[in-house]
Amino acid sequence: MKAVVYHGDRDMRVEDVPDARIERDEDVLVRIERTAICGSDLHLWHHGSQAFPQAGFTVGHECLGIVEEAGKGVHTVRKGDRVLVSCTLGCGRCIACRRGNYAGCLTTTEGLAHGNVLGFGDYAGCQAEAVRVPFADANTTLLPRDLEDEACLFLSDILPTGYMGADFAEVGPGDTVVVFGCGPVGTFAQLSAQVRGAATVFAVDLDDERLKRAEARGCIGINPSKTDLVTAVREATGGEGADAVIEAVGVPQLVQQAVELVRPAGRIAVIGVVLAPVELPWPLLFNKNVTLRTGLVSPQVYIPKLLPLIREGRLDPAEIISHRLPLSDARRGYEIFANHAEGALKVVLKP
Amino acid sequence: MKAVVYHGDRDMRVEDVPDARIERDEDVLVRIERTAICGSDLHLWHHGSQAFPQAGFTVGHECLGIVEEAGKGVHTVRKGDRVLVSCTLGCGRCIACRRGNYAGCLTTTEGLAHGNVLGFGDYAGCQAEAVRVPFADANTTLLPRDLEDEACLFLSDILPTGYMGADFAEVGPGDTVVVFGCGPVGTFAQLSAQVRGAATVFAVDLDDERLKRAEARGCIGINPSKTDLVTAVREATGGEGADAVIEAVGVPQLVQQAVELVRPAGRIAVIGVVLAPVELPWPLLFNKNVTLRTGLVSPQVYIPKLLPLIREGRLDPAEIISHRLPLSDARRGYEIFANHAEGALKVVLKP
Amino acid sequence: MKAVVYHGDRDMRVEDVPDARIERDEDVLVRIERTAICGSDLHLWHHGSQAFPQAGFTVGHECLGIVEEAGKGVHTVRKGDRVLVSCTLGCGRCIACRRGNYAGCLTTTEGLAHGNVLGFGDYAGCQAEAVRVPFADANTTLLPRDLEDEACLFLSDILPTGYMGADFAEVGPGDTVVVFGCGPVGTFAQLSAQVRGAATVFAVDLDDERLKRAEARGCIGINPSKTDLVTAVREATGGEGADAVIEAVGVPQLVQQAVELVRPAGRIAVIGVVLAPVELPWPLLFNKNVTLRTGLVSPQVYIPKLLPLIREGRLDPAEIISHRLPLSDARRGYEIFANHAEGALKVVLKP
Amino acid sequence: MKAVVYHGDRDMRVEDVPDARIERDEDVLVRIERTAICGSDLHLWHHGSQAFPQAGFTVGHECLGIVEEAGKGVHTVRKGDRVLVSCTLGCGRCIACRRGNYAGCLTTTEGLAHGNVLGFGDYAGCQAEAVRVPFADANTTLLPRDLEDEACLFLSDILPTGYMGADFAEVGPGDTVVVFGCGPVGTFAQLSAQVRGAATVFAVDLDDERLKRAEARGCIGINPSKTDLVTAVREATGGEGADAVIEAVGVPQLVQQAVELVRPAGRIAVIGVVLAPVELPWPLLFNKNVTLRTGLVSPQVYIPKLLPLIREGRLDPAEIISHRLPLSDARRGYEIFANHAEGALKVVLKP
Repeated sequence: MKAVVYHGDRDMRVEDVPDARIERDEDVLVRIERTAICGSDLHLWHHGSQAFPQAGFTVGHECLGIVEEAGKGVHTVRKGDRVLVSCTLGCGRCIACRRGNYAGCLTTTEGLAHGNVLGFGDYAGCQAEAVRVPFADANTTLLPRDLEDEACLFLSDILPTGYMGADFAEVGPGDTVVVFGCGPVGTFAQLSAQVRGAATVFAVDLDDERLKRAEARGCIGINPSKTDLVTAVREATGGEGADAVIEAVGVPQLVQQAVELVRPAGRIAVIGVVLAPVELPWPLLFNKNVTLRTGLVSPQVYIPKLLPLIREGRLDPAEIISHRLPLSDARRGYEIFANHAEGALKVVLKP
Repeated sequence: MKAVVYHGDRDMRVEDVPDARIERDEDVLVRIERTAICGSDLHLWHHGSQAFPQAGFTVGHECLGIVEEAGKGVHTVRKGDRVLVSCTLGCGRCIACRRGNYAGCLTTTEGLAHGNVLGFGDYAGCQAEAVRVPFADANTTLLPRDLEDEACLFLSDILPTGYMGADFAEVGPGDTVVVFGCGPVGTFAQLSAQVRGAATVFAVDLDDERLKRAEARGCIGINPSKTDLVTAVREATGGEGADAVIEAVGVPQLVQQAVELVRPAGRIAVIGVVLAPVELPWPLLFNKNVTLRTGLVSPQVYIPKLLPLIREGRLDPAEIISHRLPLSDARRGYEIFANHAEGALKVVLKP
Repeated sequence: MKAVVYHGDRDMRVEDVPDARIERDEDVLVRIERTAICGSDLHLWHHGSQAFPQAGFTVGHECLGIVEEAGKGVHTVRKGDRVLVSCTLGCGRCIACRRGNYAGCLTTTEGLAHGNVLGFGDYAGCQAEAVRVPFADANTTLLPRDLEDEACLFLSDILPTGYMGADFAEVGPGDTVVVFGCGPVGTFAQLSAQVRGAATVFAVDLDDERLKRAEARGCIGINPSKTDLVTAVREATGGEGADAVIEAVGVPQLVQQAVELVRPAGRIAVIGVVLAPVELPWPLLFNKNVTLRTGLVSPQVYIPKLLPLIREGRLDPAEIISHRLPLSDARRGYEIFANHAEGALKVVLKP
Repeated sequence: MKAVVYHGDRDMRVEDVPDARIERDEDVLVRIERTAICGSDLHLWHHGSQAFPQAGFTVGHECLGIVEEAGKGVHTVRKGDRVLVSCTLGCGRCIACRRGNYAGCLTTTEGLAHGNVLGFGDYAGCQAEAVRVPFADANTTLLPRDLEDEACLFLSDILPTGYMGADFAEVGPGDTVVVFGCGPVGTFAQLSAQVRGAATVFAVDLDDERLKRAEARGCIGINPSKTDLVTAVREATGGEGADAVIEAVGVPQLVQQAVELVRPAGRIAVIGVVLAPVELPWPLLFNKNVTLRTGLVSPQVYIPKLLPLIREGRLDPAEIISHRLPLSDARRGYEIFANHAEGALKVVLKP
């Protein structure tokens, strides 16, 4: 079958790989209908060779498709079902999964170098014609017939990740929230903050086009190269600071700035992937009585909350799609997304 | 000064009463700008003489106005401030108030027959030209200059009461919620459920006009005299039942029906004022693992969440106002509101 | 094999029944080491014939034992393991189980008259030499080798049920708690309240022997036939009432009295099995802003919290065992337990 | 009056200062019965001159005593009452205090260099014969007559601080908890973890005497210079790590080690005062989905939970007192406490 294979930095190739197939009773084989390129795939693109010297694996962790075959131990979906696949694979039975921390599943991460996200070397990814999904009862969700593929696709990862930001930052009715980043995850964090009742959402980005989109969705856009963010937030909050700050970029300096922006007894969630240590201004953190959370998403936990919101039209995730390409054009998809070219915000691939 | 005085069932009179004045250091005297007639005032109107045989007191517990005088022990507001008054009076210092249960304040209810709500005999009400507000630091809120009187007025009672319904029923993102009643409190419960992220809100009422308004706000209107509510909710939830049910009418049978409508491990909030015992179908309640909450509102707790939502345009409480009358016409206001005449949904009075 | 079979009111017989065996891939067959008679079995004993006219089924829902055979679809336990069996059977995969409401599992209750508790007609019980456990991954727990059978046995049902009482009543550090009932479940509710940090636990029962045991565990014993409970609680709480009340008997009048005992903004949990409607004194419930919860236990949720407490010696569930009998003497066990004879508090059976 | 005055590093002097007196209507003047030296006073002792170049102020923030005079605006305590004083002074009315964050009070910190803790330059401290307590309704607690001074004294600061550690780390029934530090605050964190139901508490310290005391209270003592802490915690938790880690020392390296020790989806609370930035190992923090909290205590919030536990004998804070000295010997108290001399664990001073 055709698949997008990582061969080193800036080297993604669409090529023939052995067909995905069921290996264990609890697997399903999913024929991919839609997949997408994620910001975390760009970590591979830009500098993956450090962490993944042994290239040659299929990438991709966002997808939905049709069950082509279900193992004997699969009970919740069957052949022919249209299903969403969660990006982090849990077994559904270990103590971590029972706590809702599928991302920290003890079973699916055991002995693996790169963890339980599809498409990072240990589990073959889904930017392909088909994908094997282990522990299918825990990792696939049957989709309602009345929803378009594009409305559901981002439940695989980035919509729950954005929502997790609002959840980790305990966003609630009346809150003032700052979200760093207006990319796909930042956008979904902003929308999630609104869904949870935030009164004011500051959307921060250097890209004025993205800020315009955020403002059209009811946010206050701030370009920190032009406007002093700290001053703006202080003025809007009577000097107090934001109830919640969500970092959706992955830059240590923004985590530090979040401490400056948050109000006393406020909350900071870091959902951007930060690859380096972060030096926290501890005396300020202490004086402010801050709660700080970070982590990898378990879409399984948030899908039951998000799917009805999509279905009832309260969330429209498809609005972020900027490009729809055939799988065979994946390389170009990576290039424009990596370079912010052609207004690329989110690239969806169709096998 | 002029005030609306209760003289027995269906007998409210606008008459001269002694001027309200400061009695203790922590009081403020508020010159009323706007006041309103509440559904709970109708309990007086319809059958108050049973509980309040000694009539002759000023009624009303929803208002805002200008501070005319502040006692020496008042620190948070001053003469000339425009303030909102909370309907339940807490001292702000006792163990109950510290828990956020101002409605159960030990100080302001001590030795009183009818509790700490303004305008029910123990504290002179605010359907008047002025009102004395005890413990003003706990019971008044300074209003932003940029908000209209009508946008803020319902923070006194019914907007927090409606919100409390959504809070007590733990409404959260993606939920299906049933709200009994499309009167003022029911409407605010519906809006609050939406603000907290509900995906679907069933609005139940016998009045088709009110249902139309609810549908215009994104609810599914159900007239139970025409449509089977239980069937409708089951169909919408795959047979499970509603995540949350809010009773905003005050009828025992609706509390019972809530048990039928709620899903296993769901939540029921009763914010309608039920004056009789309620026989609960216990085996069903037990089999369903239900959480049930009821109570009187402490607006103080919810105002900080709701005020920013009004200010940012995410809530528009004024939309329920159907009539604006001078205080001198209060009697007529009661009559049309009590009789659902002239499309009366909410009557605001201006002294 | 030998099993205890229900044949009508006050008619439990130990007799030969067909051997339990694996029926589906996800079943395990457990050879019983210890089982016990539960207060809810006494509902069958006293008046089961109304609800269960078709007698002739094996009873019992508390047990542990050794896995004799595991179906191909079972992954978490294997032949030879010593396992605890949860009294309520969940599939572990439906929306209810994912919420932690195994008691409300959609799969295991589908189309059944009496629900998903072992030993009530729909699933053969465990007062027997062996039992089939469906969905074993969800319903069995591997036990640590260093714990005695008797230390673990009550994790099947009554220890989690007692703990659920403290959980539903949100018992926390410093609380004053009233527990109605000093039987097995009441005792575990008292111990659980203490584990969660209650400062004062009132243990209420008519049996002075049971009260003495409660006092030895640090509770304040109250015999309401001798002492006025309401007065005692008021005095102990400065007039406020109890933070939490747990009903562990199953009597409507005690649910009503709980409303009288609880403080404003307090919590009531009803874990006793009440078989009739309950008339709640609504105006009082409303004035007090009470939270009320009831329901059937999902031991699966609480076992991970309770097992470490047993292992570290912070909970000693075995202390309630008053009688140890061979399975063949089960009938006598029922008789003494039902009649409070011979000081029977908890009867354990060994096949 | 006599008071302990800070004159520079290692220079505390008992000397005559102007009498404390009421300055505002909401003040009380408290005649000190007992005061104590806190670990945070040692920051002054060791290196205070950097942050507090202008020495010459009265120190001390833990005390109880008798109200000698109460301002006209004080309502909850009166002359002659024995009261506890909270170390952080809140106004009780601002938005921060209403959220329970008295430590972040907007009123009492306004314009001040060193914040709202008694005895750090901005508010005269309580290691003295008397102290002025501003906003007395928010900052004093009437003590029950039946409790000894020494049983209550530590409610001023270190008992709530230790409890806050368990609260911030969300310690609950069955948890495995690691507490860094067996000094006064660490000890109270350990006791609080036990009160909240922890099954296992690892107490970490380099001082074997302190570890023995911790073991006598049911903890597992670990001296990391002799035992590998990470290995010990892994073994005790089946490789997972601790549910909660509480840092009660104030050393950046221990905060870093906490990340290593905590299990996936676990919680870290830092209650030790860390005066430098902390470099967090972010990728590990991210992979583990950790919640991290730090901050200054608001005793006001925790006293209502802790006082009943002391009263009922479930907590015995006085056990940590190693030395009782007259106020005139305060200098010696600082010396032995600062140098861990004479087994000094907690030094109480009596004026």
